[in-house]
Amino acid sequence: MRLFIDAMGGDLAPEAPVLGSVEALRNDPALEIILAGDLAQIEPFLADAADVRNRITLLSAPEVITNHESPVMGVRTKKESATVKGMLALRDGEADGFVSAGSTGAVLAGGMFRLGRIPGVERPAIAPLLPNGKGHFLLIDCGANVDCKPDYLVQFGVMGDAYMKGVVGIENPRVGLVNIGAEAEKGNALVKETYPKMEKAPYNFVGNVEARDITADQADVIVCDGFSGNLILKFMEGLAGTLMGIIKGEMMADTRGKIAGLIGKPAFRRVKKIMDYTEVGGAPLLGVNGAVVKAHGSSNAHAFACAITQVKKMIDGKVVDIIAKGIAEQTANAAE
Amino acid sequence: MRLFIDAMGGDLAPEAPVLGSVEALRNDPALEIILAGDLAQIEPFLADAADVRNRITLLSAPEVITNHESPVMGVRTKKESATVKGMLALRDGEADGFVSAGSTGAVLAGGMFRLGRIPGVERPAIAPLLPNGKGHFLLIDCGANVDCKPDYLVQFGVMGDAYMKGVVGIENPRVGLVNIGAEAEKGNALVKETYPKMEKAPYNFVGNVEARDITADQADVIVCDGFSGNLILKFMEGLAGTLMGIIKGEMMADTRGKIAGLIGKPAFRRVKKIMDYTEVGGAPLLGVNGAVVKAHGSSNAHAFACAITQVKKMIDGKVVDIIAKGIAEQTANAAE
Repeated sequence: MRLFIDAMGGDLAPEAPVLGSVEALRNDPALEIILAGDLAQIEPFLADAADVRNRITLLSAPEVITNHESPVMGVRTKKESATVKGMLALRDGEADGFVSAGSTGAVLAGGMFRLGRIPGVERPAIAPLLPNGKGHFLLIDCGANVDCKPDYLVQFGVMGDAYMKGVVGIENPRVGLVNIGAEAEKGNALVKETYPKMEKAPYNFVGNVEARDITADQADVIVCDGFSGNLILKFMEGLAGTLMGIIKGEMMADTRGKIAGLIGKPAFRRVKKIMDYTEVGGAPLLGVNGAVVKAHGSSNAHAFACAITQVKKMIDGKVVDIIAKGIAEQTANAAE
Repeated sequence: MRLFIDAMGGDLAPEAPVLGSVEALRNDPALEIILAGDLAQIEPFLADAADVRNRITLLSAPEVITNHESPVMGVRTKKESATVKGMLALRDGEADGFVSAGSTGAVLAGGMFRLGRIPGVERPAIAPLLPNGKGHFLLIDCGANVDCKPDYLVQFGVMGDAYMKGVVGIENPRVGLVNIGAEAEKGNALVKETYPKMEKAPYNFVGNVEARDITADQADVIVCDGFSGNLILKFMEGLAGTLMGIIKGEMMADTRGKIAGLIGKPAFRRVKKIMDYTEVGGAPLLGVNGAVVKAHGSSNAHAFACAITQVKKMIDGKVVDIIAKGIAEQTANAAE
């Protein structure tokens, strides 16, 4: 298996992507990696990687598409960027998967316009796995599509279903629709129109999931428009931080609390680990014609290695093929 | 001051609204209350309230608009409901404020069609005060308007600004717009169109607030469409519960954790109190031509008494007048 790694994306690049790649290569002797970026910046971090160096191909890609420019323009003009080169390598079969911790917009635009969509897919979507205390659920879409049509959401269900089958190994994933009530007639215009279409879709649709139940293990795939999904994802991050801050503040407020905090440290550390979704790796870009994972922008080397593990699982689990099959069935159903 | 109380609304009615009213009357010797509902069910709970009985007027309102019927139809047909009678009493000056823990839809429909809107207001909104660790922010709208136009959101800012000035006493409330990025050009079609209009609105607009910062005290009033607001409100409830469950589970998993849990109990109790937004009372319905508070459906007597305190503050703080003035200014600005 050969993966294409954007060495220049993310807050800690190139160190984290390069050292993460080395970690992944050490974990898997069958893996090969193409490291793309500014070679002068990459090479120093390979000084201690002689043991895996023969499985690394360095590729010069000096341009970077940043978070501060138009992703579509970036993908169009920066042909020497790792994102553009990686997507073309995937398209042409020179790589089996792609990982970047860089601009989400650039990964999305590169996926859309350089790699291309799976036939029949209206809109690719970004879909992180998030913790719910009992395991994980896939939240799709998380920001690729801020204004959605009902058919996009129906297809997000197909893509999420495929991911949970292929990567997580759930036989018949429960697919739910984010809504403000449990009843079919609830919601805004978008979800009201989406609901009956999802009932006919080729997956295990379990109906609406109220926001209070998103982390209550009511569905394996939770579908929403990208604006709502981004709200949920970011709010989860912010609220967990606020709540942990309140707990810390109250425990430090008196001696009893301070002692409890000291004694309870291992338990709190486990809680933090459960809530830390960077452990999972990153978020797959589903619907494009290849295995693409967007690692968290703040990924360190280990988190980046986890994202590499994730893209490997997508390839092994044939997620792209399962989506293609599901979309063909869904579009045939919808045309009836 | 005379308040109209729906004694039949909420999960714990009539006990909670009746005993909550008695608590409020004991706290404030100047208060008078109209208790409306099924009198045979109400009277037993007044057995121990001889000390305030002379300030209670009982009003027969045997019909109840439930959560399981169309609110608009309910308000149209159930003329003998406390909601309809209360809204008419407000309209006709027979009461100064209204509190119900019943169907949110019924309170909203009653407010719209029986009480009426403040002149110039496009859509009333539901706006709870939520904790952020440092204090509270007002989230507007939380479900009254699931499909919004930009002008609704601009006006939600006016209404939230008025509430924070009149009730919470903040001189120049910071008004933020919920978005998926901090930059003005981010977001879905709705917020992109709303942003420049908010810049011209007669309040202290502080720009976009990303979901991760909603509980980070970046704004006193946080504006969004009712679908997003309901997501945020309910997700906050659900996630806080999930997180506390994970913490509890991890602490019970070993002896150290169990001991820490015991010693830390007072601190955990304080955390729970901070996060418990029912302490605040309920959510005001802003934009209608009177002081209306929707208490949480699960309110107990004390929570109901808090909701009564809240409606009193709305009346004392002249929130309706401030909104009317703000809306006049905003619509004049917009027409320029």
